Amino acid sequence: MPVGTLATVKSLDPLDLTTMGASMILANAYHLHLRPGDELVKEMGGLHAFMHWDRPILTDSGGFQVFSLEGLRKISEEGVEFQSHLDGSRRFFTPEMVMQIERNLGADVIMQFDHVIPGQSEEPVARDASERSVRWLERCFVAFEGAEKEETRRQALFPIVQGGIHANLRRAAVGAIQSINDWAGFGIGGLSVGEAKPAMYEMLDIVDDALDSTKPRYLMGVGFPDDIVEGIRRGVDLFDCVAPTRMGRNGAVFTADGRLNIKRAEFRNDPRPLDETCDCAACSRFSRAYIRHLFVSDEILGLRLLSLHNVHFLLSLARSARQAIIAGSLATWSDAWLTRYHSRTDKS
Amino acid sequence: MPVGTLATVKSLDPLDLTTMGASMILANAYHLHLRPGDELVKEMGGLHAFMHWDRPILTDSGGFQVFSLEGLRKISEEGVEFQSHLDGSRRFFTPEMVMQIERNLGADVIMQFDHVIPGQSEEPVARDASERSVRWLERCFVAFEGAEKEETRRQALFPIVQGGIHANLRRAAVGAIQSINDWAGFGIGGLSVGEAKPAMYEMLDIVDDALDSTKPRYLMGVGFPDDIVEGIRRGVDLFDCVAPTRMGRNGAVFTADGRLNIKRAEFRNDPRPLDETCDCAACSRFSRAYIRHLFVSDEILGLRLLSLHNVHFLLSLARSARQAIIAGSLATWSDAWLTRYHSRTDKS
Repeated sequence: MPVGTLATVKSLDPLDLTTMGASMILANAYHLHLRPGDELVKEMGGLHAFMHWDRPILTDSGGFQVFSLEGLRKISEEGVEFQSHLDGSRRFFTPEMVMQIERNLGADVIMQFDHVIPGQSEEPVARDASERSVRWLERCFVAFEGAEKEETRRQALFPIVQGGIHANLRRAAVGAIQSINDWAGFGIGGLSVGEAKPAMYEMLDIVDDALDSTKPRYLMGVGFPDDIVEGIRRGVDLFDCVAPTRMGRNGAVFTADGRLNIKRAEFRNDPRPLDETCDCAACSRFSRAYIRHLFVSDEILGLRLLSLHNVHFLLSLARSARQAIIAGSLATWSDAWLTRYHSRTDKS
Repeated sequence: MPVGTLATVKSLDPLDLTTMGASMILANAYHLHLRPGDELVKEMGGLHAFMHWDRPILTDSGGFQVFSLEGLRKISEEGVEFQSHLDGSRRFFTPEMVMQIERNLGADVIMQFDHVIPGQSEEPVARDASERSVRWLERCFVAFEGAEKEETRRQALFPIVQGGIHANLRRAAVGAIQSINDWAGFGIGGLSVGEAKPAMYEMLDIVDDALDSTKPRYLMGVGFPDDIVEGIRRGVDLFDCVAPTRMGRNGAVFTADGRLNIKRAEFRNDPRPLDETCDCAACSRFSRAYIRHLFVSDEILGLRLLSLHNVHFLLSLARSARQAIIAGSLATWSDAWLTRYHSRTDKS
């Protein structure tokens, strides 16, 4: 899912996304609550109408954003008091309020309000946050079901599996969550937030075994191309990450042979496309030399072209993985893909 | 002609321009000489290939830019010594060098190197600059013809009529220019550079009478919607201006009822399109409320949508004027258009 935090995937037009075959995008409840306000979005007909996007949308609950406001927030069982990153105004989020915000926004899939902690947290801290997330899920579910009866527009509420890097906590969270309801899908949270990669992979294996295998699993906030392949190998179906657009705006280009930075002098007169294996709207028309010129000159078209390319790269990657799964060749396909991708990464 | 100073019309994709029916764009020899360099552009196959634009391109000679470098340049009969606005490096432009730069860029129409002065200049200053521009035209023409014999790609060189706001100088410039060659078209320079509007209109009327009426006339650096209509009434065929994209990036919107600024609070929950008479890719999909949200949130899509709308507005305006000319109703059409346009302009 390309990320449209503020109801726009940065530097792209919705038409670019449908042309590239994006089937679902993500927006953010915390950001949209602050600006332009979820009630305004509701007044304008909901997120789909507001941003002219008629395919599925998922809204994150703001749990991650609120907990990222280090020093600006206070957590209690009732909810979280925090200061807006925009104007410092005092705000209070409860699970019930977040459900109302996500209802106002009107996405197809809405995430529960959860308690996110740093990836390296010790077991007592992780247990406290994971158990609170389950209690907040129960409150979200009550609020969600109450509102769902009154509305004609159907939404799906996804729970979020927390538990840090502790296998026992992850298993306990899955058990507790699955005992509440027969969910349409699951979020896997609290990964790729500072822990080591092997710890993330171990948690994914555990959650993969424990979750209902007939429902989609969404690995939140992940990730880079190789993270996505590693996640798919471990049963993940949905991903979101700002990487393709944020890195694109910094000149970083995903290619089958790893990452490169278009601003480098070596590309000054390079007539080749960004990635010779790519058929995106940037690679089919423009040279590295031209796109480097746009970046060096601070031209907006450069941001757009790299964002287009990187989003297209991830969408194509997911399509290739799907074909490999259908063909029964995921393991060999992904081994070969990862080997080639890691052959060159210039840390740009 | 939408302006693509650095080989990109700011915030737009070439495909946007062809979709809107832009038939010709402008790029700038001064800017492209400094970055990325006209020789690099030549190495990459010329401007058309470099920026993936297969319709006509006109390059301005850099005369206006060089003369805008107040205090950073020294004019002699040979040429102009100046400092780059990018790095302060010393450069020297002669008519012959400018022809070589424009040859390297490879546009379809190239402008002579001319001596531009402020709009309010007294007659002796204006005479000196205008007569020098004619002498430089003779040198440009010799250099142009010499190179043209060796190249397979054909270009058209346009002279530029100078003369400030002095009727006798404008008439003399037209006479001198037309005695040199049977030109494919004419530039009209040194207007909309600080003089009063009635003075500009008077000069246009004089030049309109004096120039060969079978050749296109290009009013350089003009302009705003009403300037374009006034120019068309006085026989002008081609215009260029950064206004639609530069003003768009500042939130200003051209509409049939005048200009408005999308950042104003009154548009916060306005479900209407930017201009209810418009069928551009912004107006056919998005509300003022959404585009205002994009601007308030510094989202790049906002810059793109207003640039799209404003460029589309000017292209549609030119098409309407052409239809009125064919129908023999230019005077009544333009009277009505100007009255409506001036009914609301909030100076945004």
